[in-house]
Amino acid sequence: MKVLVPKKSLADTLARVERIVPNRSSNPGLSLLRIDVTDGAMELSGSNMDVDIRAKLPADASGNGTYAVTAHVFGQVVRALPGDEVALDFGENEMQISSGSYTTKLQLMSPGSAPVLSFPSDHAGSIDGALLARALGAVRYAAAVADFQAVFRGVKIELRDSHTRAVATDGFRLAYYHLETSTGLDADVIVPARSVEELLRVVDDGEVKLQLDDGQLSVEHDGYALNLKLMDGTFPDYERVIPTAFPVSITLPAHRLSEAVARVALMADKSANNRVDLFVKDGQLQITAEGGFGRSLEAIDVMQEGTDSEIRLAYNSKYLVDALAPTAGDVRLRFSGSNSSPSVVNDLGDPGYLAMVVPLRTT
Amino acid sequence: MKVLVPKKSLADTLARVERIVPNRSSNPGLSLLRIDVTDGAMELSGSNMDVDIRAKLPADASGNGTYAVTAHVFGQVVRALPGDEVALDFGENEMQISSGSYTTKLQLMSPGSAPVLSFPSDHAGSIDGALLARALGAVRYAAAVADFQAVFRGVKIELRDSHTRAVATDGFRLAYYHLETSTGLDADVIVPARSVEELLRVVDDGEVKLQLDDGQLSVEHDGYALNLKLMDGTFPDYERVIPTAFPVSITLPAHRLSEAVARVALMADKSANNRVDLFVKDGQLQITAEGGFGRSLEAIDVMQEGTDSEIRLAYNSKYLVDALAPTAGDVRLRFSGSNSSPSVVNDLGDPGYLAMVVPLRTT
Repeated sequence: MKVLVPKKSLADTLARVERIVPNRSSNPGLSLLRIDVTDGAMELSGSNMDVDIRAKLPADASGNGTYAVTAHVFGQVVRALPGDEVALDFGENEMQISSGSYTTKLQLMSPGSAPVLSFPSDHAGSIDGALLARALGAVRYAAAVADFQAVFRGVKIELRDSHTRAVATDGFRLAYYHLETSTGLDADVIVPARSVEELLRVVDDGEVKLQLDDGQLSVEHDGYALNLKLMDGTFPDYERVIPTAFPVSITLPAHRLSEAVARVALMADKSANNRVDLFVKDGQLQITAEGGFGRSLEAIDVMQEGTDSEIRLAYNSKYLVDALAPTAGDVRLRFSGSNSSPSVVNDLGDPGYLAMVVPLRTT
Repeated sequence: MKVLVPKKSLADTLARVERIVPNRSSNPGLSLLRIDVTDGAMELSGSNMDVDIRAKLPADASGNGTYAVTAHVFGQVVRALPGDEVALDFGENEMQISSGSYTTKLQLMSPGSAPVLSFPSDHAGSIDGALLARALGAVRYAAAVADFQAVFRGVKIELRDSHTRAVATDGFRLAYYHLETSTGLDADVIVPARSVEELLRVVDDGEVKLQLDDGQLSVEHDGYALNLKLMDGTFPDYERVIPTAFPVSITLPAHRLSEAVARVALMADKSANNRVDLFVKDGQLQITAEGGFGRSLEAIDVMQEGTDSEIRLAYNSKYLVDALAPTAGDVRLRFSGSNSSPSVVNDLGDPGYLAMVVPLRTT
């Protein structure tokens, strides 16, 4: 069985699939890439147990065949090939890869050793890829890296009749992105944040098809199919903790605030939550920090609403910078008035985004 | 004491000095940067015991003062400053750093805690910076990363009446770069390869002044002064091991050989010296490798001298790729005919460079 395929498309596809297929695994079958050759196309598939991926690419092939190779070795060889075209010749035990003056014979493994994957052919839901990518990309940072409750390491996706919304929180901060559009599905799911990252690498402009089935969310887009294993557990009732009254709010350019916080925080004590203090009064925001090496101050003129009050709150500077990263243009920072109640960031140019940061307790 | 200095020049200078001053050290004085302010200039100096560095930059200053700060914190703050100009105001215990809307007060340390450094004012030797950088940059890779004999981790610099030459070897390969020019000094020195890297970051076009003194080589160039501590020990008599007779040699483009070796070596066994085999016969070079994942072959037409013989030798592919990295255009690969005697790489466009690689012993 011979297959001809352009080097660039094969290398690009392998690079995406390889991100998911583990290089080493206690289960050696997991490091295999399954190759299905059909008339005029090649399908590459693999899994890391949390995410299954299948990529389809056009190829000059006739006949049918199913093979398996070690994914990372195949990827390395293809990236290094000298020519623009790759010829794959599948034999009994070896796949010969030829390009220009170079030939490799790569050992074939039994396709039966590779994980058994199944991707749905029908999809009940769909959404615009750019919107989905924006929503997931804007909230992913707020998920916990490690936490006693697994759901904090996931991103909740509300697939409702009335809206679609992505939410992440680690208990100290929260981000959601709200879309006034329905996918056609009706369920709330929690997807591991790391799986969301892999999904973000595959999704861009164009329609994304969705299907919910048997503990997994399946996604199809632009030649790629993914199954994302869902997390069990109950996501916290986050809407309850978002304050509704804000005696003071300020408006200023997002990059101005983000850069100032990061700069001032250089003096903050890393072992004390990277604390920066915000002081708002009479249309001015003062950001200060103090630590073992010294102290710093930056003052910024802002548009202030609720000028009767002043605000003096401390934050983990990293949480503020993270919350501002998905924004552009002007942001509004709204203070709920108590130092135990969260502050809220809105992007004035993008009403779908909301971030919440809990101030540090100071005594 | 107030000093005004452009942010970019201060940030660039600090970045170079910071590479040498350790971020953390069991001797806390070593992480300090000494600042000497004089009329119209600022001098920054520090040391990691192997390399002392002093950088001079023009500054709007009047008066004299000597201060010390933690180098890395100062560098971080300066890089983050919002304005184009930096105002430094040295007080009793604090240095105030202001730029745009931002102000930091950084704690000053006692200059007496910083290492005592002295840089020569007179220099007996000199060399063109571009030549020195080329010579050192071309051989540095051949020094050992870790070895029982310390001299293998150094670069020998022959500063002779008749020539200047940089040499490095780890016992399995060797590189030298020969300049038909004298620095005016007359001595052979061994500089730690890591110090050579720091020197390479500072040296570029223009005159480099040299001075040998008390176990160190001092270098001055473009506002920077460095003292490089020399290594004790006897460098191996390397000229003795370079073969003089080569029954077969081949000529081909360097990048062609380097890419082919790297590509074929993807199939090589990493635990067996990344072995690739070279087979030369009738004007063709065949490169092959074999390992657990499969085998690979690349054939290249070459210009062959000594066509009566054929060559069949094995190499560590990494050593071949390293030896070719400093070359461009065509290279000549010369084989001494025995599989225990080294092969030699010459750059046809740059006669100063020579690399030697010992073949793998095969049975």
